[in-house]
Amino acid sequence: MIEVATQQGCETLVEAALSRLGVMLVGVGGAVASTTIAGTLAARRGLVAPRGAITESADCAGLDLAPLSSLAFGGWDIDQSPLSDRVRRHGVVSPQVVAAVKEDLDDIHVEPGIVANLDSTVRRLVRSPRISAATHSEAVARLVADIADFRDRQQVDRVVVVYCSSTDRTPINGPSHRDLDSFQRGLAENAPEIGNGMLYGYAAVSAGCAFVNFTPNTTVEVPALQELANKQNVPLAGRDGKTGQTLYKTVLAPMLRVRDLKLRGWYSTNILGNTDGQVLEDPLHGATKVHTKESVLEEILGYADFDHRVRIDYYRPRGDAKEAWDCIDFEGWLDTPMSMRVNWQGIDSILAAPLVLDLARLVGLAQRRGERGALPQLAMFFKDPYGTTEHNFFEQVVKFRQYVEGCRAETGAAVSTASE
Amino acid sequence: MIEVATQQGCETLVEAALSRLGVMLVGVGGAVASTTIAGTLAARRGLVAPRGAITESADCAGLDLAPLSSLAFGGWDIDQSPLSDRVRRHGVVSPQVVAAVKEDLDDIHVEPGIVANLDSTVRRLVRSPRISAATHSEAVARLVADIADFRDRQQVDRVVVVYCSSTDRTPINGPSHRDLDSFQRGLAENAPEIGNGMLYGYAAVSAGCAFVNFTPNTTVEVPALQELANKQNVPLAGRDGKTGQTLYKTVLAPMLRVRDLKLRGWYSTNILGNTDGQVLEDPLHGATKVHTKESVLEEILGYADFDHRVRIDYYRPRGDAKEAWDCIDFEGWLDTPMSMRVNWQGIDSILAAPLVLDLARLVGLAQRRGERGALPQLAMFFKDPYGTTEHNFFEQVVKFRQYVEGCRAETGAAVSTASE
Amino acid sequence: MIEVATQQGCETLVEAALSRLGVMLVGVGGAVASTTIAGTLAARRGLVAPRGAITESADCAGLDLAPLSSLAFGGWDIDQSPLSDRVRRHGVVSPQVVAAVKEDLDDIHVEPGIVANLDSTVRRLVRSPRISAATHSEAVARLVADIADFRDRQQVDRVVVVYCSSTDRTPINGPSHRDLDSFQRGLAENAPEIGNGMLYGYAAVSAGCAFVNFTPNTTVEVPALQELANKQNVPLAGRDGKTGQTLYKTVLAPMLRVRDLKLRGWYSTNILGNTDGQVLEDPLHGATKVHTKESVLEEILGYADFDHRVRIDYYRPRGDAKEAWDCIDFEGWLDTPMSMRVNWQGIDSILAAPLVLDLARLVGLAQRRGERGALPQLAMFFKDPYGTTEHNFFEQVVKFRQYVEGCRAETGAAVSTASE
Amino acid sequence: MIEVATQQGCETLVEAALSRLGVMLVGVGGAVASTTIAGTLAARRGLVAPRGAITESADCAGLDLAPLSSLAFGGWDIDQSPLSDRVRRHGVVSPQVVAAVKEDLDDIHVEPGIVANLDSTVRRLVRSPRISAATHSEAVARLVADIADFRDRQQVDRVVVVYCSSTDRTPINGPSHRDLDSFQRGLAENAPEIGNGMLYGYAAVSAGCAFVNFTPNTTVEVPALQELANKQNVPLAGRDGKTGQTLYKTVLAPMLRVRDLKLRGWYSTNILGNTDGQVLEDPLHGATKVHTKESVLEEILGYADFDHRVRIDYYRPRGDAKEAWDCIDFEGWLDTPMSMRVNWQGIDSILAAPLVLDLARLVGLAQRRGERGALPQLAMFFKDPYGTTEHNFFEQVVKFRQYVEGCRAETGAAVSTASE
Repeated sequence: MIEVATQQGCETLVEAALSRLGVMLVGVGGAVASTTIAGTLAARRGLVAPRGAITESADCAGLDLAPLSSLAFGGWDIDQSPLSDRVRRHGVVSPQVVAAVKEDLDDIHVEPGIVANLDSTVRRLVRSPRISAATHSEAVARLVADIADFRDRQQVDRVVVVYCSSTDRTPINGPSHRDLDSFQRGLAENAPEIGNGMLYGYAAVSAGCAFVNFTPNTTVEVPALQELANKQNVPLAGRDGKTGQTLYKTVLAPMLRVRDLKLRGWYSTNILGNTDGQVLEDPLHGATKVHTKESVLEEILGYADFDHRVRIDYYRPRGDAKEAWDCIDFEGWLDTPMSMRVNWQGIDSILAAPLVLDLARLVGLAQRRGERGALPQLAMFFKDPYGTTEHNFFEQVVKFRQYVEGCRAETGAAVSTASE
Repeated sequence: MIEVATQQGCETLVEAALSRLGVMLVGVGGAVASTTIAGTLAARRGLVAPRGAITESADCAGLDLAPLSSLAFGGWDIDQSPLSDRVRRHGVVSPQVVAAVKEDLDDIHVEPGIVANLDSTVRRLVRSPRISAATHSEAVARLVADIADFRDRQQVDRVVVVYCSSTDRTPINGPSHRDLDSFQRGLAENAPEIGNGMLYGYAAVSAGCAFVNFTPNTTVEVPALQELANKQNVPLAGRDGKTGQTLYKTVLAPMLRVRDLKLRGWYSTNILGNTDGQVLEDPLHGATKVHTKESVLEEILGYADFDHRVRIDYYRPRGDAKEAWDCIDFEGWLDTPMSMRVNWQGIDSILAAPLVLDLARLVGLAQRRGERGALPQLAMFFKDPYGTTEHNFFEQVVKFRQYVEGCRAETGAAVSTASE
Repeated sequence: MIEVATQQGCETLVEAALSRLGVMLVGVGGAVASTTIAGTLAARRGLVAPRGAITESADCAGLDLAPLSSLAFGGWDIDQSPLSDRVRRHGVVSPQVVAAVKEDLDDIHVEPGIVANLDSTVRRLVRSPRISAATHSEAVARLVADIADFRDRQQVDRVVVVYCSSTDRTPINGPSHRDLDSFQRGLAENAPEIGNGMLYGYAAVSAGCAFVNFTPNTTVEVPALQELANKQNVPLAGRDGKTGQTLYKTVLAPMLRVRDLKLRGWYSTNILGNTDGQVLEDPLHGATKVHTKESVLEEILGYADFDHRVRIDYYRPRGDAKEAWDCIDFEGWLDTPMSMRVNWQGIDSILAAPLVLDLARLVGLAQRRGERGALPQLAMFFKDPYGTTEHNFFEQVVKFRQYVEGCRAETGAAVSTASE
Repeated sequence: MIEVATQQGCETLVEAALSRLGVMLVGVGGAVASTTIAGTLAARRGLVAPRGAITESADCAGLDLAPLSSLAFGGWDIDQSPLSDRVRRHGVVSPQVVAAVKEDLDDIHVEPGIVANLDSTVRRLVRSPRISAATHSEAVARLVADIADFRDRQQVDRVVVVYCSSTDRTPINGPSHRDLDSFQRGLAENAPEIGNGMLYGYAAVSAGCAFVNFTPNTTVEVPALQELANKQNVPLAGRDGKTGQTLYKTVLAPMLRVRDLKLRGWYSTNILGNTDGQVLEDPLHGATKVHTKESVLEEILGYADFDHRVRIDYYRPRGDAKEAWDCIDFEGWLDTPMSMRVNWQGIDSILAAPLVLDLARLVGLAQRRGERGALPQLAMFFKDPYGTTEHNFFEQVVKFRQYVEGCRAETGAAVSTASE
């Protein structure tokens, strides 16, 4: 791979450089991020197919996406253990796969994570956090420097930062969110309304990186950072990956809608036993998550006179496997009540990983195409999508396909021009 | 409503006559047909909203459908009890509603049904069948005469025949199915491959009626009757109403498809306790039903290397309530197995009734618009739709919406022309 | 029934008087109490069998229980509407049955209920509470007077008071609970640690009534009132009727225990939509209920290293129907994990009513037999039984059967003595 | 272990010889038998606890059972692959455990199995069966010789034969079953009504071995072989291990019985993907299994007017994991219908293995104690127990405990006599 002498080889290298993409993950050793990386490395070695990644499927054929082989991974974590240790401890990836990609995993540099608002729940979970900064300004400076180092080390120009940390408490409101000037004042003054996610978002966007919020946390959603993204010409995608219960909820609710079956109630409970579950046990953290889960039904159905309850409970035996149970009550002809129950036995990181991979590549593509700000075409990936109120999964799919068609049409035109 | 003297009143009457629609149901006293009628009568009297009927929703606004008030019901049954008795015995419609529409129900004339192939299972279920014909030709003649009588009595020109009888055994093959000439020879010779459904289909289409096959039986599907429909300029819709398990199956399978989650198996069992359930206990009848249920997944997913098992079991405590349980196994990232289970507690006739109403009106509209043969725009209503292999519910919805848009555009154009 | 002249008739009357039993229900208009009464009245009229009441089954044959026809009902409620109205509003008993027993229901005198600690949740639910007392002493005096009135009016000597009110907040601790003297001082001083349940318990026991606590509330459980019960020679039974989830939990856990299948976790969620559910939404009320539900597994299994989570959520579409979902994780041979899920679709009052009836009769019997204090033989009826730590349902059944055998032996002995 | 010189050592050896127990398994390489052996070997090496084996729990403390270390395994199979290969292919035991016990496993001699009635289903599943006999007499002679060889090789006196083969077709009836003389004539004449299970049963009992039928097949159930067992003084236990759905069915039905909740219907479906499932797909084999599953409810409940349906379906994705779904309909107070659903996700061999181990040891003990014929105390282990019609799991447990108490009492007496 190194000794390339022919003309063709050089072109390939140039092309690779152009499409080479850096992916920095916040919470890189967490279950979601590390499973994404381990699986991508395994797919790169041909050990498994990248099952679940639609950027590898016919649906995305013809898009000028960064090849799997060109992705460079990095990121931050408050736990600096080697990534192979973290992956092993999560217990999601099989020992065989971990063994096969151990070296690749441990080559990845894990920068010390920053935690602006270290509350008691987080403190309890992290035995020896290496927090990299004491003030907001210091934190931002460290993060920007980390990104610059990563670019140099990995020889990548474009970097997507994907926020995969655990769920924060719902942030307090404050003047810093309003606009960029206020935010920068807030940084200087260590304003308490600036949370972790905003610090990462500010640093990433400042450094010209596209940003994906895969969590329910508040990051670049505040007006101040949207202003910055527009100024910096970077695209943003979020929020909160639609992996399990909300996925099928936004699939089944449209069925009720089309068939005019009137929803009377939807009870949803979730049990999970990983760190995310432990964090969500703290009601102040849990509220953040439940919020993005609850908003979807009214928009799809066009009415709101039903009970919608969402529970998330920590339950150790489940581990990273995330089980859900839903009870759905509806009425049909002659107002007759009927019901449906769903029991989902998924595995959180396994469902999330291909979405993280897809998002990094699709946002990378969007940045190359000059898109900036919210990317509504990616709504199908999120519980609470940017730039649209559309929650119906199939309408979101239609939007995504239209976008792909548009990209193909442009590329097709360019190609035919080039071939003249 | 009665004393109309003004010019405008007269126009309304003319319009009403134009859009007045006869609906003749085969198995009119069965749970599906009689619940359709009882609910429509109740809605007409303002006792309930016609919940579940999309022809009454915004999705069909602007279509020139026959108003609820203009529908005239009739049909055939092997049990000639008054309809209100049948409705009461099915136990699906509340006593209050039955009482309120009793007279309207009993005004409906029930013609004696014909049964070409009375097998032991059917014979056992029907205590005193009044079978109206001994030979195929005699049967057809009776049915054609019944339709003519209905037209006269109800003063309707257009009639849609909706086949709602219980599930027959899978028909044997034979030369009569091939083309119209062969079929007519088969009628004359009492060919055993001509089943009940074909006799009704032949009679209806011969009499210029649009025909809807709401069951899994073989009716107008044979080439001979499609030839006849084209000749007679009548539209056909079918087959087998998509009411419960297959409905959500064609909703959830697209989710797996879009997310590239690989299906490994789908186990479906159904329990029901009504007459339909008893008939389906006979494996020769059950096979007919299972067949239309099994065909849907491969087409949606684009592959076939999975186990798909469908069971239907008679279980008395369920009555007309039709419960289903599904176990869905799939693989994601790193080939990790995950699963989903669904428990559906629906009520068969309640789910079917608004579809029967919608189909009668939409097929009535199609006939007025001059459409003939298979109506692929109605695929979303059926397990095994005519004129398309599309089973993905949301793709079917897209097709239906395009059709509605088309109708609206035509009407809009006509209106604007007229207003010049 | 009225004209009794013969010798035999007189004896029957005397016997009836002896076995005549007064049943005063706290929360008499609530769903549980009013369904108990309505069903008993219906059974008395021969409209239905008293299904679910084991005192009517062969298991209790030979016990000298008060006949259904001899029960006299009364009680207290903060809502003084006629009982037939309350029953109708609960929507649990069919309109036919309500109509048939309306007069009998409305003959029952509803005394104004007392509420010692009217918190905001209770205040919100009760539109026009008629609270009958301002101080603890006044409350007790009123209740004792109500019991005396009931005895006079109904000509009953023995009275069982059954506490069926909604779930209170967990009481605060205080010195009044310690012993009878302290309690009486607390009454005089309006001590805040004396809750509703204790006031009713004190009044009932003081008046010589047996007392059943069918709720998770704290009533006669405090040492002060147990001292009083012993002094007064009255039996006590409780606490919290074992109607649904806890019932099958104490049935399935013994199966795991016998088969040495190691429990790793048991997740239980409950959804209900009646007033009880609304009250339990208040976390301070809910804690009381969850407490009695959580205590059962450790005792049955003999170890505690598993996760046991119990949720109760208010969900309007369920009404009085109480649905539960359990996820049970266990390990077997070679430490292999396996699991079981249960979905219970019960109706709270329907399950509770026959238990209330059984308890009233069995406690009445115990009082006649001279038993006093906690009745451990009734453990099978309760989530948190008095006088025993046995939670295994089948061990509880064995105890109950031994008790019945004992009673039969005594009676048998008496009979044989008499026949000499 | 080998070099024992001291007095004490000698006594230990003698004792070990006395309590040493041979266990010959029919279908020794099948999932159930091989998982039993692998797990026992692993427990012997201290790798895992023998979880699920009640003979290792306090419930059996004080019984003079053969120690795990003294068990010698052998058996027959139509597939002569090394046992470690079979275990690996079943995919139930973890690779770590297989590796740790590989040598022990492969030391076990697998005798060629006999198949008297090789039907098409079995033929299809077994690629290269090595059938050891052509006639009944030859088969019996071979089996008896195999047992003698095993005794010699393993230096064991007592041998229990446990029948664990896959489910046969329901046997035809014939005169051979009637009595021992007829049976022996049938052997000589190769009578078709003598199936595999009877050949193994006859050989085992003739050779003085206790016999356990862990399957639903017909083995020693025929009168002829019971006569033989009595003559030979050997105990018999069976039939069909109660591992999953029937286990919890006989646990939940008693709950309904005690609470007088009237069962209206119980629908049970099972999905499994192992060889057993494939065999059961053949309706003639399946009928055998469904039969033992269906008989349990009536006896427990004391009435029969309910629907009980049992389905077993082959479903590949499940592998050896055996999933079940039950829908249970019952009525309570005021005849109100309620329901309960159970979803069991067990693993067939994991549930069966400790029962096989327990049965071998308990039947070995019974033989030493001089018990012969049916052992009703072991009813709790079986779907269709010998010597009793008791199906209620908890009544069966009571019987077992009484038996254990009896054994302890005897031993206690002996001990105290000895110590005088």
